[in-house]
Amino acid sequence: MAAGPCSVENQDQTLETAKAVKSYGGTLLRGGAFKPRTSPYDFQGLGRNGLELLRQARAATGLPVVTEVLSPQDVDMVAEVADVLQIGARNAQNVPLLAAAAASGKTILLKRGISSYIDEWLLAAEYILVHGNNKVILCERGIRTFEHACRNTLDVSAVAVAKKETHLPVFVDPSHAAGRYDMVIPLARAAVAAGADGLLVEVHPNPAIALSDGGQQLKPKQFGQLMAEVRPIVEVMGRRMADA
Amino acid sequence: MAAGPCSVENQDQTLETAKAVKSYGGTLLRGGAFKPRTSPYDFQGLGRNGLELLRQARAATGLPVVTEVLSPQDVDMVAEVADVLQIGARNAQNVPLLAAAAASGKTILLKRGISSYIDEWLLAAEYILVHGNNKVILCERGIRTFEHACRNTLDVSAVAVAKKETHLPVFVDPSHAAGRYDMVIPLARAAVAAGADGLLVEVHPNPAIALSDGGQQLKPKQFGQLMAEVRPIVEVMGRRMADA
Amino acid sequence: MAAGPCSVENQDQTLETAKAVKSYGGTLLRGGAFKPRTSPYDFQGLGRNGLELLRQARAATGLPVVTEVLSPQDVDMVAEVADVLQIGARNAQNVPLLAAAAASGKTILLKRGISSYIDEWLLAAEYILVHGNNKVILCERGIRTFEHACRNTLDVSAVAVAKKETHLPVFVDPSHAAGRYDMVIPLARAAVAAGADGLLVEVHPNPAIALSDGGQQLKPKQFGQLMAEVRPIVEVMGRRMADA
Amino acid sequence: MAAGPCSVENQDQTLETAKAVKSYGGTLLRGGAFKPRTSPYDFQGLGRNGLELLRQARAATGLPVVTEVLSPQDVDMVAEVADVLQIGARNAQNVPLLAAAAASGKTILLKRGISSYIDEWLLAAEYILVHGNNKVILCERGIRTFEHACRNTLDVSAVAVAKKETHLPVFVDPSHAAGRYDMVIPLARAAVAAGADGLLVEVHPNPAIALSDGGQQLKPKQFGQLMAEVRPIVEVMGRRMADA
Repeated sequence: MAAGPCSVENQDQTLETAKAVKSYGGTLLRGGAFKPRTSPYDFQGLGRNGLELLRQARAATGLPVVTEVLSPQDVDMVAEVADVLQIGARNAQNVPLLAAAAASGKTILLKRGISSYIDEWLLAAEYILVHGNNKVILCERGIRTFEHACRNTLDVSAVAVAKKETHLPVFVDPSHAAGRYDMVIPLARAAVAAGADGLLVEVHPNPAIALSDGGQQLKPKQFGQLMAEVRPIVEVMGRRMADA
Repeated sequence: MAAGPCSVENQDQTLETAKAVKSYGGTLLRGGAFKPRTSPYDFQGLGRNGLELLRQARAATGLPVVTEVLSPQDVDMVAEVADVLQIGARNAQNVPLLAAAAASGKTILLKRGISSYIDEWLLAAEYILVHGNNKVILCERGIRTFEHACRNTLDVSAVAVAKKETHLPVFVDPSHAAGRYDMVIPLARAAVAAGADGLLVEVHPNPAIALSDGGQQLKPKQFGQLMAEVRPIVEVMGRRMADA
Repeated sequence: MAAGPCSVENQDQTLETAKAVKSYGGTLLRGGAFKPRTSPYDFQGLGRNGLELLRQARAATGLPVVTEVLSPQDVDMVAEVADVLQIGARNAQNVPLLAAAAASGKTILLKRGISSYIDEWLLAAEYILVHGNNKVILCERGIRTFEHACRNTLDVSAVAVAKKETHLPVFVDPSHAAGRYDMVIPLARAAVAAGADGLLVEVHPNPAIALSDGGQQLKPKQFGQLMAEVRPIVEVMGRRMADA
Repeated sequence: MAAGPCSVENQDQTLETAKAVKSYGGTLLRGGAFKPRTSPYDFQGLGRNGLELLRQARAATGLPVVTEVLSPQDVDMVAEVADVLQIGARNAQNVPLLAAAAASGKTILLKRGISSYIDEWLLAAEYILVHGNNKVILCERGIRTFEHACRNTLDVSAVAVAKKETHLPVFVDPSHAAGRYDMVIPLARAAVAAGADGLLVEVHPNPAIALSDGGQQLKPKQFGQLMAEVRPIVEVMGRRMADA
């Protein structure tokens, strides 16, 4: 169960979120230092300073950290802090980045591209595996369809198909799939019931002032609610929460 | 929990399936007598004879029946046998049919169109409600997207959105969403966890020789497995199986 | 070249539009009397009275008329006035309606469903052909995709594929594809260059007060501009305008 | 009018294609040296050696060269040979690559992502413009939709919208949109009629033995046919072929 802010914004926000994630039973801290934004005029992340904040949060809580890397040149710098390197949906077929990330030897959390066929997603994973790094976590995060009630359409069948066709763990990011906080919990429940091995959830102490994706981030208390609703489904699936 | 064959094909198949559905805890028998097929050269259903087989199956098992109606002229004939009239995805915006079905006073199971926005689906329900018939069950059955690993993409967020925006019960048809039998159970679990009030599942004694949709129908034993996997999630959601 | 209002609204609007369509070289008058609307609270068309207005407009201008039919029961009534029966996108797989329209012996303009595969569209035409009526015009009108800058995405490749795989004439409706008047002319040009045999264009004397689809209807003068821009491309394609 | 092989494969193939492109009136040579492939087991391009072949072809024909760059580290090397740097659809939101390409000062041909909103495409161009490089060519290459008769759906409305909302030239790649050689010419005609400023067409002396995308490449003679069919539409649009 990974959770944390969309973007690392400052020390207070990062530490407060990390402690909340831990207190509610999260086992991995997520947070973006390098942010791939659609517009050049949006907040692009704190970069190196954001990594430092993540390092502090890990030291304070003991939670391992997953954070995104955008460029082959940044892999070494990010890998110094991150326990898990995230390849985002926009880079799902960025071959030089996949190769560089693989070479770090770190675990790679590979998001499905926003319009990747399941086959393309698994072949993107293959670009990591052929470099001798088999520590790959697949992550479904919603696909782009005609429907716009949510930001994306969570494809729960992709979880089941990926579980059947590979031996890799499959996570789900209900926050990006929903794009709205009030749909995150039902999507999280559905993901676990479909067979997901873990979740990646956005949490922010005050989503209303978040520098990115404010509408989809949960408050810490809502994250606690999510954990409470997901736990019994995890158990029904014959898993233990600590694995997720 | 509605289950039964895609098409009613003959007396043995219909009765055998109905008894299996009942024995595993199903509470509603589904089966198509009038089949809307993409090609005029495919099996179009047994029509009036199929209705007679459904009547016999109901008499033998006590299960109420849901079956599809395709034309305003057929509503009265179908309503004589059916407890619930199904409006299929291809007719999701067939206004004269919605009006005629509403006028029958029967409960209407309204499938979402294969590319209907959630808003359009709710407005289609409104075409029934404005005729003074408020016994409407919404049914999500997968939407058409770029992804083809499954026949359609089950949109679990539509379940959650529809539950939030209306007071109507929301069912899910994991069989048409999956289009392949090996994905029906995980999608059924996900649907219930997302908040679905019921499921509509295709079951056939021998899918290999089915006259329609053979690839996605469950054998009776697999339906039993589905029930066993879904039941604890229903309970986690604070529901009882009989309601579903 | 078919043109006319989305909906027939009153005598003045109908006659004024019909005369403008004729004066700019249109050869077929379109206009909806029975309107399939997404919401029951929107204008549903004038029905039988709308047919009477179309009959008058045909008498006044000599233009043959194409208009939509929504229900099998209405086919005879509509066929008394219409030279061409339109089956709309929402009814692209309404088998009883296809059969009833085919039996009228009239030419059928068959719109592609908003998410129909090309194969499904051609098989829908087959439902008409098997009734012994081979006077079918296929009409591409844009498909539903993730992109929302226009209401739908005009699929020009569908025109080329349908021309290759069938002997049927293929029309294009740039108005519904665009959903905005300022994109109708470029789409019309592209459609003809892709090989379309005709166009179906919405024209209204005063789109700002139209009872349906105001945003996508052209003013008569803009329709004249469309004709002027399309004519030389028709000629480059080795066709004559009168055929279109 | 840019044309050339999908991949640069060897000296003979490259020179023969370049000469054919020139002889039929092409004004820009395309050819891939660094190939972004879905699978790591597919041909990944000749890399640096491919650039050398492009340099020779340019010297032999005088045609300027457009070729793709995949990684920020490769920009300088590719920019030594290329007159125009191509950013492919898979990298449509690869911010570090957009920045590095912009900094080269070269003209950038920016393909639309396979599921990019038009807005996202224009904002990707903005990532180049904010680096002070305004030599950007937008290139529509088909979007991913449910329809699979062609590899992608050419979005001609995107051409018209981009022409309206920006001052940038807009090219179209009918080869990737079609994914099949027999649909390239009608799509090329439609693109020009929609207002495209240029085309990017794949040509190969012997598509049957091409190392990539064999099914969609034109033979030189077919390219000649395309030029013959496109030229009169270019003129109807009030343009001269040399501009394209």
